[in-house]
Order: sequence, then C-alpha cells, then structure tokens
Amino acid sequence: MTPTPQFTAQARESIGALSASRIREVANAGLGLPDVLPFWFGESDEVTPAFIREAAIASLQRGETFYSHNLGLPELRSAIGQYTHQLHPQYSADAWAARVAVTAGGVNGLMLASQLIVNPGDDVVVVTPAWPNLVAQPHIMGAAVRTFDLQPDAAGLWQLDVPRLLESITRNTRMLIVNAPNNPTGWTLSRPEQQALLDHCRRTGTWILADEVYERLYFAGHAAPSFLDLATPDDRVVVAHSFSKSFLMTGWRLGWLVLPPALLDAAGKLLEFNTSCSPVFTQRAAVLALERGEEVTPRLVAHLRQCRDTLVPLLQAVPGVHVATPLGGMYAFFRLEGHTDCLDTAKRLVREAGIGLAPGSAFGPGGAGWLRWCFASRDTARLEEGVARLRRWLQL
Amino acid sequence: MTPTPQFTAQARESIGALSASRIREVANAGLGLPDVLPFWFGESDEVTPAFIREAAIASLQRGETFYSHNLGLPELRSAIGQYTHQLHPQYSADAWAARVAVTAGGVNGLMLASQLIVNPGDDVVVVTPAWPNLVAQPHIMGAAVRTFDLQPDAAGLWQLDVPRLLESITRNTRMLIVNAPNNPTGWTLSRPEQQALLDHCRRTGTWILADEVYERLYFAGHAAPSFLDLATPDDRVVVAHSFSKSFLMTGWRLGWLVLPPALLDAAGKLLEFNTSCSPVFTQRAAVLALERGEEVTPRLVAHLRQCRDTLVPLLQAVPGVHVATPLGGMYAFFRLEGHTDCLDTAKRLVREAGIGLAPGSAFGPGGAGWLRWCFASRDTARLEEGVARLRRWLQL
Repeated sequence: MTPTPQFTAQARESIGALSASRIREVANAGLGLPDVLPFWFGESDEVTPAFIREAAIASLQRGETFYSHNLGLPELRSAIGQYTHQLHPQYSADAWAARVAVTAGGVNGLMLASQLIVNPGDDVVVVTPAWPNLVAQPHIMGAAVRTFDLQPDAAGLWQLDVPRLLESITRNTRMLIVNAPNNPTGWTLSRPEQQALLDHCRRTGTWILADEVYERLYFAGHAAPSFLDLATPDDRVVVAHSFSKSFLMTGWRLGWLVLPPALLDAAGKLLEFNTSCSPVFTQRAAVLALERGEEVTPRLVAHLRQCRDTLVPLLQAVPGVHVATPLGGMYAFFRLEGHTDCLDTAKRLVREAGIGLAPGSAFGPGGAGWLRWCFASRDTARLEEGVARLRRWLQL
Repeated sequence: MTPTPQFTAQARESIGALSASRIREVANAGLGLPDVLPFWFGESDEVTPAFIREAAIASLQRGETFYSHNLGLPELRSAIGQYTHQLHPQYSADAWAARVAVTAGGVNGLMLASQLIVNPGDDVVVVTPAWPNLVAQPHIMGAAVRTFDLQPDAAGLWQLDVPRLLESITRNTRMLIVNAPNNPTGWTLSRPEQQALLDHCRRTGTWILADEVYERLYFAGHAAPSFLDLATPDDRVVVAHSFSKSFLMTGWRLGWLVLPPALLDAAGKLLEFNTSCSPVFTQRAAVLALERGEEVTPRLVAHLRQCRDTLVPLLQAVPGVHVATPLGGMYAFFRLEGHTDCLDTAKRLVREAGIGLAPGSAFGPGGAGWLRWCFASRDTARLEEGVARLRRWLQL
C-alpha cells in the first residue's frame, strides 16, 4: 500500500487566501429551490443575436478549426480598430487596430495586463467596490494590493475622492486599476477626474489599467468617458474591453486590450503562453457583431434604460431602501435599513423571498451592507415581481 | 501638445526577456513565398470531424451563449472522468471526474498549474528540449527556472539521465515539469522512470506537473505510461491534457487538468480570474468527441504511424541525416551533418527549398542544431515531396 504522502497537496498560500465568490455562495444557497428570480450574475438573460451565432456556425461548417494568430485574426483586429475609431476618432482605425490584442474575454485581458506589468511585491491600487477579479489578478502575480474605496453619499450615489486617491499613488505605485462605469455601484469617472488621474500617474510613472467593458452601457450619452480619449499611444495606459456586455456575448469568452504599441509583442507572447489564441469561429462571430453592432447595442442600451427606469423608482419607493440611479452599467446597488449583514440578507432573500441578489461584500469591504441587483432582464415584469417579493418579505 | 511621457511604456523586464517564438521567426521568413510545405506547427492539417463540429452548431442554434461553471460543464467533466477511467481503471469514472478542471486548451491548464503552485523565487526544473511554453509559464510567475536536458545517443534517440536529474531535485525544488511523450524529441518516459521520479519527488515534496497531451499519440501501445497510473489522489501531481491532438481540435482551445482533490476549489477560483469558463458550445463538442472518440483517435494514430513510417525511413536514407523513430507524438526530430546553426538552416530551407521546419533551438539550448518536422499530414505524399526537396537542396 502506498503510504500517506508526507507533504499535503495544497495550492500555494496566496491562492488559498483568495476568497471564493460570495455571489456563488448565495447562488449555492438557492440551489434546488423552486421559483427563485436570479438577479445575481452580471449577465443579460437574452441569447446572442442569431446573425452573430450564424457567423460562428458558418465558420465551423467551413472547417475553421485550426490555430490562429496569437493577437487575433487580422480581420477582427481591423474591425475592432474601426469600432474604436468611431468612438474615439482622434486616431485612425488602422492606428487603433495596431494596438489591439484579442483575448479570451475581458477578464482574460485584465489578467494578461497584470502579467504584462506587475512584478512580485509591486504596489498596486484598485478602486473598490469592484468585481473581485480586479483585486485577485495582481494578487496572483504576487503584488501587494491596496484598495481605495468609493464613498456613497446620503442619496446612495457613489463618489471618488480624487485628491485623497492621488495622495496615495506615489512613484512606488506600479499600477492603478479602475473600473468605470463601475460594477457594482454604477459610478462613472467624469472626464475631469480621468484627466486628473492621468496627469498624476504620468508624474509618478504609474500604469493605469482601465476596465471599460461597460463603456457603451451608459445612459448619459453615446459612450462613457474613456481613457482612450485622453491618453497618447505611449502613455502607460491599458484599456480592457469585452464582447460580453455590449453584444450579448457573455458565454463566448472574447474581449480585447488596447495597449501602447511597445507592449504588443509582449502581449502576443503572453497570449501564446496563456491560451495561444481564440477560436477562429468565435472571432468570426465577433467580426459580425462589430460590423452590425448598431443593430444590437443601441437597442440593448435602450432596453437596459427601461429596465433601470422600471427597477430604481420601484426600489426607491420601498421604505428603508437607499438607492441612486446609476449612470452606467446594468446594476442597481442599494442598501436596506436594518439589514447590515449583506451576505446573510442575500441568503435569506433567496430562501425566504425567492430573490437572487449579489451581496455587496463580494465586491470588497467597501461594499459591505449593500446588495447588487442586475437589471438586465428581457421582461421588465420580472423586475416588478422582484420588488413585489421584496415588499412582501419586508412585510410592507 | 502633450509632452513626451517621462516614463516609457514597456512590459516588465522578465516578460520582455522571454524569447518570441523561433518557430514563428522561421514562418515569418516564409511569408509571401509561394509553394512552401509547412511542417513547422504542431498541428494536423485535418479539419475537426463533422460530428464534433455539429454538436457545437446545435448548441449555438439552441442559444447556449451564457456563462457556465468555472470548472466546466458537469456533463463534460463526467465524460472526461469516463474517458480517464477507461485508460486508468484504478479509480472510478466519478472519482476521476471530481478531480477534473476544464481549461482553455492544454496550454491554459499548464499556466493555471503554475499559478496554483509556483511562488515568486521558487526553484522549478523543466526537462528540455520541450515546447517553450513550459519554461515560460513558471518564469512569468516569478520562479527561478532551471532546465535539465535530455541527451541524444549516436542514433538520435533521446534519453533521460534519471539519476542525474534526481540529484538536482532537492527539498528546495518546488516543481518538476516534464512533457512525455515529448515535443519535439518523441522521447517517452518509461514506467520505471516515472516511478523513480515520483518516489524521489515524494521525498523532496516537489510537485510534478506532467504534460501528457500526447498520451494517446503513442505507437508502442494503447497509451503512453502516465503518472495517473502511479500517483494517489493526494500526491503532489498535476496532469495536463488537451482535446487538440487526440481529437483534431487544435483551434477549439479546450483541455483539462487532473488535480489532487484539495486543489479543485483553488483551480475554480483561478479559472474565474483567468477566463471565467469555457464556452458551452465548445464544451458540448468536446462531450461528443469523448463519447465517440473511438471513431477518431485510433484512426488518427494509425494514420500518424503511417506518416511516421513514411517520413522517418526516407529521412534516414538521406546521407548526413541523424534521426531516430519516435515512440510517440507527431514529430521527427533530426540533425543534418554540416548544418549546426538550426535557425539559419530552417530559414534557408524555407526560402531555398520550400520546406517549413521548426528550429530545434526553439525548444531550448539542448535542441540547438536539430530540426523538428511535424509529420501530421493528411496526404503522406506531402512528406515524400518534402524529403525530395531536402535531397535536391542538399544536391544529392
């Protein structure tokens, strides 16, 4: 008989220390329960449009099942360049395309950015609350990660204290990670705030990693303010994008980075060592999504606005609920007077009220006491039913 | 005008230091040249079988375009458990399935294993020549990577000096990475060699990361010897597999890890932070590939054997060529007397002879002077034509 091994098989300590998703913890509490309305994940319940799926199907039928370029199909990089040029016309489509690396989803682009930039021990600052992956990624690379919390005002509107953030970013700070429009709070960086961050980080030599995947899910204009409008190609700025949110393609695992030109070769190497490339057939679908994007995104944003404008006023009318109208994204982030333990509250809401929400503590300590409601729902009646359940649970 | 940034935008030094692929360097030398026979990449030129593609198409038509489980679809993990049980019957299909994490290709599984296990500064040993990703991955995680070279005998057959390797693995060695059947040499670990490595690493507490993606592309039996046959579930052993080679699915980017049970949670977290999940529609295709694998793999192996037995004797008959018959994999690794600079030779062969080969130096210094010929070719006449071109180029 083989003796019990002397050394236990455990992941390294810093990986073991990463918390598992508290969203999944709540979702697990609802496993097997009938009739739960799931608003916990950051995903629309709409299937990817048929014309996008058909492009992948045609590619599979043609037999495009081989390895492709590390950085992405030239056709897709070119289409992304065109799309970026329409949003950010200060550089040509070709100039943008030359700075694009196609990744296995937005999250993969963000992880590659940490691999590209973060050395063990580096000081990295993340603006939180934010989806947990942003903090975990530099931590995996061995960085010393600090968080800087947004603060809610009395109305539940989240704000960034820019001067205090800038004070905490020094020449020793390797990277600032910021997600705006923000998941979960809906907070969005203004143009002057972006300029202040960029000016300061230029002085300290700090990289800015901007997670702008909600750029188009913005209700105060065509697109949220982007670092791409302010930064030069040679600035230490990396912007992450995804097909998931704007094109209803969550499950496809496709996104892209916009990088300084000097980083493209290194990004190609890291892509080789991480996933080698994305499937050709999913990239063909992404080309169609961009070419006919105006058939998808504006309709989606109009619908999300309707979802937001259904949910938020109903929530605001519930006594004890504090919630502001988000400028971007697809989440209402709210708190409930008398219910400060959000993980416990979320679990109770699943079991006792049939409402699936994400606990704010999943997004960092600054989110504790809050709850996230994803309002991306085909049928707005589901949102109304959710609020009715909340009222019944509160015995109102 | 924006002033020139004071800090240049460069990737961190350790990423800049990674060599770009020398295989791509040779392929680039052939860009635009007509009539090159490409034997450089590790990929069959056969399209994925239609029934596998059709499973993905049906899934897309059903609208399976949403996020899925971090560790993979339960159906796919279960099918992998069944497949593994057939090859390694000492544990049940369910027991194997519980140790499976589905990854975005074999390379992604190997990268995740480095993220799971390797701390900055850790001592990691890689048996080389090997495909360059195996050395790059722990390096990206900040490890101090050492290589240990296989040695060719006079006939060109590569051998591992087990006692000398074991001497170099101490209690300070965090991980040993070994790829067998080996790309590029065709070398395969014997069962007693595997046992010696495992026994020693049990004493030193060293993890073994076994890249066994060529397990089924083996010509001396049904499958190459695997660490899964020797290790207990609690041993510090991780085995990486891929759908790419055995099921003709290179472009799909799907593979899996077999892990100690205690690592599954950590693997799920790392999957979340790296790619979140694999597309459902590619996973559906993989389920079909496994269920009807006996329609694919045995035919493929029989054909690869025919390719090998076409190419190797023809090469051996060329004066000045030294090449042994590989036991596994899909590569002939050979040297050419009088041509010691393999990168230069490979570039000349592309330009002057229309033969696309990979330079041995792409696989580490131990491969310098050698050339890799991928013989996975639908039409064996292409291999004959390749050797004829080599003879003409040598003016024989």
